[in-house]
Amino acid sequence: MRLIMGIDPGSRVTGWGIIEIQGEQYKTVDFGIIRLTKKSLSERLYLLSQSLNKIMQQYQPQEVVVEKIFLGKNADSAFKLGHARGVCFMCSAQNRIEVFEYAARKVKQSITGSGGSTKEQVQTLTLAMLRMKTEIPLDASDALSIALCHSMESRIKAKLENGWKGVLL
Amino acid sequence: MRLIMGIDPGSRVTGWGIIEIQGEQYKTVDFGIIRLTKKSLSERLYLLSQSLNKIMQQYQPQEVVVEKIFLGKNADSAFKLGHARGVCFMCSAQNRIEVFEYAARKVKQSITGSGGSTKEQVQTLTLAMLRMKTEIPLDASDALSIALCHSMESRIKAKLENGWKGVLL
Repeated sequence: MRLIMGIDPGSRVTGWGIIEIQGEQYKTVDFGIIRLTKKSLSERLYLLSQSLNKIMQQYQPQEVVVEKIFLGKNADSAFKLGHARGVCFMCSAQNRIEVFEYAARKVKQSITGSGGSTKEQVQTLTLAMLRMKTEIPLDASDALSIALCHSMESRIKAKLENGWKGVLL
Repeated sequence: MRLIMGIDPGSRVTGWGIIEIQGEQYKTVDFGIIRLTKKSLSERLYLLSQSLNKIMQQYQPQEVVVEKIFLGKNADSAFKLGHARGVCFMCSAQNRIEVFEYAARKVKQSITGSGGSTKEQVQTLTLAMLRMKTEIPLDASDALSIALCHSMESRIKAKLENGWKGVLL
């Protein structure tokens, strides 16, 4: 059994979700939204670290997955996001959890088969794959999607590696 | 007596410096360089938080000062810097220290009288104002400069406010 925690960091709202993998089965363990209501940036980031530490200590996931960011048109918002991302990375190391990153396009492709899918299509398929029947906030389902993407990608990677070993031995 | 901590965050090297203000006198209390040698970003950021927490707990400064960043030509490096900045802000709130920000141009102007001064000119004047006779790493003197800038700016602000009160009462 393996627990994977996906995080969708934001300067005001951070979504998170934890999935359990057992063999070829995925299951949602928990998910939620961390709202940063404090006035100053430093207090918001401290609140974020406290909330993440609490969740990581409670569930002790083996891996954390965060979206890889590219600086494009929204350089300014990406810069602001960097602060919250830094806290996510820091908390992961503090809890001795390895961090993995995937580009948004890769997450979409893993879940729906196409890198050009809409956020809603990704959400619908994520919830279907996890057999969740009620709607959940988009930030939380984004976090579940990236956790799901990592679990599928790491399984493909493991199969490829085992395949190579089979050929070489 | 007031202790001000300046931080010059970087993704690989973070400079810091603490000055003491007593009346109109400034004095360097301590300064240094935090080198982040770990391989992964999350481990580097965790190491940064541990080092900053140790310094903040040791000296218990009343204020932390960090450079304000504008996204210009170096958007990509500013984005990377955001992660380390986030950790500096978070650690300040964790230690209940208020954070202040100044643009690089403002720091230069405060120290040398001109926003267009070179880094070396700012360093020379910073060391002279603090009556330091030996050379120190640029990252550490940058941290001392921003702490010095804040102490001068906050004194001007206090004088202006008292002036206003004098006029109004």
